Amino acid sequence: MEAPKELFQNIIEEFIPFHKVIGFKLIDVRENFVSVLIPYKPELIGDPRRRSIHGGVIATAMDAVGGAAGITTLKHYDDKLSTIDLRVDYLSPGLAKDLICEGTIVKSGNKVIFTRMIAYHNSPENIIAEGRGVYSVSRVSHSKG
Amino acid sequence: MEAPKELFQNIIEEFIPFHKVIGFKLIDVRENFVSVLIPYKPELIGDPRRRSIHGGVIATAMDAVGGAAGITTLKHYDDKLSTIDLRVDYLSPGLAKDLICEGTIVKSGNKVIFTRMIAYHNSPENIIAEGRGVYSVSRVSHSKG
Amino acid sequence: MEAPKELFQNIIEEFIPFHKVIGFKLIDVRENFVSVLIPYKPELIGDPRRRSIHGGVIATAMDAVGGAAGITTLKHYDDKLSTIDLRVDYLSPGLAKDLICEGTIVKSGNKVIFTRMIAYHNSPENIIAEGRGVYSVSRVSHSKG
Amino acid sequence: MEAPKELFQNIIEEFIPFHKVIGFKLIDVRENFVSVLIPYKPELIGDPRRRSIHGGVIATAMDAVGGAAGITTLKHYDDKLSTIDLRVDYLSPGLAKDLICEGTIVKSGNKVIFTRMIAYHNSPENIIAEGRGVYSVSRVSHSKG
Repeated sequence: MEAPKELFQNIIEEFIPFHKVIGFKLIDVRENFVSVLIPYKPELIGDPRRRSIHGGVIATAMDAVGGAAGITTLKHYDDKLSTIDLRVDYLSPGLAKDLICEGTIVKSGNKVIFTRMIAYHNSPENIIAEGRGVYSVSRVSHSKG
Repeated sequence: MEAPKELFQNIIEEFIPFHKVIGFKLIDVRENFVSVLIPYKPELIGDPRRRSIHGGVIATAMDAVGGAAGITTLKHYDDKLSTIDLRVDYLSPGLAKDLICEGTIVKSGNKVIFTRMIAYHNSPENIIAEGRGVYSVSRVSHSKG
Repeated sequence: MEAPKELFQNIIEEFIPFHKVIGFKLIDVRENFVSVLIPYKPELIGDPRRRSIHGGVIATAMDAVGGAAGITTLKHYDDKLSTIDLRVDYLSPGLAKDLICEGTIVKSGNKVIFTRMIAYHNSPENIIAEGRGVYSVSRVSHSKG
Repeated sequence: MEAPKELFQNIIEEFIPFHKVIGFKLIDVRENFVSVLIPYKPELIGDPRRRSIHGGVIATAMDAVGGAAGITTLKHYDDKLSTIDLRVDYLSPGLAKDLICEGTIVKSGNKVIFTRMIAYHNSPENIIAEGRGVYSVSRVSHSKG
C-alpha cells in the first residue's frame, strides 16, 4: 500500500465519528508511520484545575495513530485490523495546547502488529506520553496464500 | 471520605469537559468503587463498518472510573491524583449500545493506587474490555505526618 | 482437552528447563485454569535487604500459568501458543516464603487468548502481584476449517 | 551518583541471588542507562521445541536493567526504588544464544521513574523484546528538602 495521504486523511478526519468529535488532523503518513495533530479546544480538558488535556484524548489519539500505522501495512481492501491491547504511560500532564501524536510500527507480523506511540506539544524531545499498541490483523493475501 | 454521590456526579458529569463531550452518567459510587454509564450516541463510533464504539471512549471511561475510585480514598481537598499509566485489553468489539464501565481499587497505598476496570453492555458476565490503571497520589495528611 | 494433571505436571515441572531452575510445582489444572507453587529458596531473592522474592520470578510464574491455562484450550498436539505480551503489577513486596501463582483464561479466541494471573503467599485475599498475558494461538483445527 | 561500574557490577552480578542464578554480566552503566549480557546456557530455555529463551528470563533482565537505570538517578544510600509495574512485548522468540538487555530512563521524577528496555541477540536493530517499567522511588534528599 502506498499510503496515499488523501485516503488516510479520510480515515483519520472523516470516516471515524469519534475522531471528528476530538478534531484530529492528519499531519503525515508513510509506510509504518502516521502522525496527527490534536488542535487544542477547551472540550478536551480533563483536569480543569491544571488545565491539562484528558488522558483519554491522548489514549484515543494513540490508538488512532497506532491503528493507522498498522493500516499502512495492509495490502487488500478486506484486510482487517483490530486493537488487542493499548498501554499509555503518562509522563507529564498535557497542557492546554495543540498536541501531536505519532505512531510507528515496531513489528508487523502476519497475525499481530506491535506499535509504539508518542505524544508531545512542540518537540518530540519533550514527550508527555508514550504508548504501546498490539493489533490483530487479518490479511486476505496471507490466508489465501 | 464518604463518597457523596452528588460530589462524584459533579466530578464525573460536569466538572471535566471531556467527560461532558462523551456524556458519562454516574451510576454508583462507594468506597473504592465507581461505575458510570456511557449512553450510546453515534458520535462514539470508532469503526463505522462494525458499528463498534471507539476504543478511545472505553479507555477514557476506564481512566475516569479508575481515577474516581482513587478519589474515594482521598481525605483532604488538597489531596491530588494523577494517572501514571493505563492499560486496556480489548476482549470483544463494543457494540452500538449503552456501555457500563466500573472501576475498583485493587490496592491503595500512600503514594500509588492500583485499580482494575471493566466495561460491558448488559451484564458483567460479558465483559468487552478490561483495564488497569496506576495512579500517583499526594496525600496532604500523609506528608504532614 | 481434558487437561490431565500428569501432562501439565510434566510441562510445568520437567519439560521447561527454566521452570526447573525456579522449582515450580503444579498445584491444580482445570479447563481455563492452572496454579503452581513456587517453594521458597534463597536463590529466588531479588532484594536481599528486604528479603523479597525477585519480581522476575513472579513474572516467570505468571507467564508460565497464563500460558499453561492457554494450553488447556488447545485441541491438537500441533496447536501452538506463544506470548505476545505480559504485564505485571507489583502490589506488595514478595516475602521470603512459598508463593502461589494462578492463571485464568479471560477470553479464548481463535487467534488470541487473554489471561489474568495473581500471586499470593497464603491467601488469595492478600495478592502481592497481578498480571495480564496475551497469547497468540495457532489452532490446527481452525486453520484446516 | 557517578554510577561507578564496580558498584553496579556488584549489584547486578553478586548482590541479588536470582541474578546469579541467571548469570547476568554487567556490560555498561552510565547515567540513566544500564546494559547487561545474559550468557546463553541450556537452563534458560523456555520452549525446548523451538529452543528459545524463556520469556521470564527476559522479563527478569528487563526489571533488572530498568531498576538499575533507576538506581543511577539516586543520590543517597538510603534512597529506595521498587517496581510498580513491568510490561514486556515479545516481538520474536529468543534464540538459544547470548542475549543483551538495555534499560534507559524515559523520565525520572521525584516519586516515579519511567524506563524503557530492549533485548536483542546481536544487534539493537533486531530487537526480540521491548519492555516498560515504572518504579516508585523514595528520595531522602527530596523528603528532607
